[in-house]
Amino acid sequence: MGSTGSIGQQTLEVVRAFPHRFHIVGLAAGKNIDLLAEQINEFKPRFVYCRDKKAHLANAEYEFLSLEDIARHPQVDIVVIATSGKSGLSPTLAAVKAGKNVALANKEALVTAGKIITEEAKLNSAQILPIDSEHSAIWQCLNGERQKAAQLILTASGGPFLHYSLAQLEGVTAKQALKHPSWQMGRKVTIDSATLMNKGLEVIEAHWLFDMAFDDIKVLIHPQSIVHSIVEFIDGSTKAQLSYPDMRLPIQYALSYPERLSNPQLPRLDWSGINSLTFEQPDFDTFPCLKLAIEAGKKGGTYPAVLCAADEVAVELFLSQGIKFTDIANYIEQALEQHQVVAHPTLEEIMAADAWAREKVLQLVTGDNRW
Amino acid sequence: MGSTGSIGQQTLEVVRAFPHRFHIVGLAAGKNIDLLAEQINEFKPRFVYCRDKKAHLANAEYEFLSLEDIARHPQVDIVVIATSGKSGLSPTLAAVKAGKNVALANKEALVTAGKIITEEAKLNSAQILPIDSEHSAIWQCLNGERQKAAQLILTASGGPFLHYSLAQLEGVTAKQALKHPSWQMGRKVTIDSATLMNKGLEVIEAHWLFDMAFDDIKVLIHPQSIVHSIVEFIDGSTKAQLSYPDMRLPIQYALSYPERLSNPQLPRLDWSGINSLTFEQPDFDTFPCLKLAIEAGKKGGTYPAVLCAADEVAVELFLSQGIKFTDIANYIEQALEQHQVVAHPTLEEIMAADAWAREKVLQLVTGDNRW
Repeated sequence: MGSTGSIGQQTLEVVRAFPHRFHIVGLAAGKNIDLLAEQINEFKPRFVYCRDKKAHLANAEYEFLSLEDIARHPQVDIVVIATSGKSGLSPTLAAVKAGKNVALANKEALVTAGKIITEEAKLNSAQILPIDSEHSAIWQCLNGERQKAAQLILTASGGPFLHYSLAQLEGVTAKQALKHPSWQMGRKVTIDSATLMNKGLEVIEAHWLFDMAFDDIKVLIHPQSIVHSIVEFIDGSTKAQLSYPDMRLPIQYALSYPERLSNPQLPRLDWSGINSLTFEQPDFDTFPCLKLAIEAGKKGGTYPAVLCAADEVAVELFLSQGIKFTDIANYIEQALEQHQVVAHPTLEEIMAADAWAREKVLQLVTGDNRW
Repeated sequence: MGSTGSIGQQTLEVVRAFPHRFHIVGLAAGKNIDLLAEQINEFKPRFVYCRDKKAHLANAEYEFLSLEDIARHPQVDIVVIATSGKSGLSPTLAAVKAGKNVALANKEALVTAGKIITEEAKLNSAQILPIDSEHSAIWQCLNGERQKAAQLILTASGGPFLHYSLAQLEGVTAKQALKHPSWQMGRKVTIDSATLMNKGLEVIEAHWLFDMAFDDIKVLIHPQSIVHSIVEFIDGSTKAQLSYPDMRLPIQYALSYPERLSNPQLPRLDWSGINSLTFEQPDFDTFPCLKLAIEAGKKGGTYPAVLCAADEVAVELFLSQGIKFTDIANYIEQALEQHQVVAHPTLEEIMAADAWAREKVLQLVTGDNRW
């Protein structure tokens, strides 16, 4: 799901490296029809979904199915959810309800509906296999451990504006924010990395993935992006997972788990070039999105859905309309403050909170006499 | 075994912290009679061994047994070998032959007789559980992994003479060499840390413990002694184990494995105080003991026994007779060069090589007209 995006393409790279091990049953994409056609040609999936219904992919020997029907199809063993935004939610839920393991790169699914998804996964013996570097790191460190961790420490590069003051942040442009120091990613997640919202969403994901209390999940700034996360155990020992920033590793690990596969395309750490790994505490005051996310996660209910949706709209307005970088957090905060929470929401109530938050941020910006 | 030494005392600290979990069946010590008497009084072992036969430990309700008889006694589940030097070899072998798990802090056993011990352990379904920070780190990182590692990276603090030139090393005193920057240890192992012989012995141990080729075991200098070792997997991912330098952690892990026990006495890493972890390549030219050890390990046979014995004598002569620090490596090298190797030695041949090497180093020093 999301085969033409950054994670989708890298997933297909991994599949391409192991033609005897992995077989593509279905491919789903949004609007990048040309690339999807190429992928269909190469991987010959039996099922295809494309959001752009007008797509002409003629003479092809595949069946058009919905995302959900592909996700739950009997021929499918593992569903890679690499769509962005709320579109990941419904196929994730369809997959876990059908007892499929889900390799999850989409953040919003667990952030907005973590309770529903993890409960359904448990009920149907489906596993959620994280595809992002931080949660994959934690998952790798927990491998073989019999007891719950004492503490999870998510590392964060700090983004392009590490050590900026609030005053400096006021003036940053979209172009500056789109330049991430260590990761090549999509536009939305790159801005989320610059605001640290990304790390906040990951804290909420970690809460659901590893059944950890928010107070036992910490964030640590690590600008080199080599230590991808750290787990502390009850005896005080800690393990960390390290590698160069390359999403193919967590993708491959999720696909091959519990085995590892030898892949010469994946870079090995060269310790002769690693002189220093540095760490510092995050600055919650200068990067309020991190605090907002953790608070929304702790409060639960529909707050995380509001957080996600408000962030999506605010980031879009920053990129396209030139609202200030620092106003991303302000609008999210206002949306959260004005939200009437539903404590134990259904999927429909989560979607409603999402829609409400999008509208709310648009209203707030429109009503803001600075623009 | 070795209850009054540094590791022995810390083992009893761990046992003391979990009185309902661990029960001391036997205690064995060398010559620190007063402390042994205290320990007997506190832990009330059924069996005692004491090297100093003249020891008066009257009115006590325990039985005197040999190290080997304690090690293989039916009441014993796990044998902690915390003696130093070659005295660890025989009880280790007795324990694994009786199918006991051995928590091994003694280096010489695996270095000199790794083949015999690991074969007997396999034959009798006994596990060797490493008690030192590096091998425990590797063991923890391998936990749950289904495949052999691609590479092991043993970290080394670099000792008190990191960045010294050969010329500077010529003049260092025993007093300087005994000041280790991060670990509090016995005298012999502290000097071995200063020459990097200690790390070389650990490479040989790692070879036997984890069935790894010497070319896949690397050494990395890490002066903070927080990353205790690193494992690289076949997919290029690496895991590291981190903690403050405290031997109670690997001791407790070996005793509680595969579980971990919550122990408030063990320090947790405080990441607000860890700003930088640094790494550099070892200097094999300035610290030739590291190279000598790895070469002896690769050549195998009786060479590692000669290495160990020659080192023990040379270190003793450095501490007591004032031979030069840099001559420790020179004498070991000469002993190795003059040794007639036995390729597949029996235990007796290992012991004979040990005796030969001790005599040889004494001869070399006596014949050296500088002293």
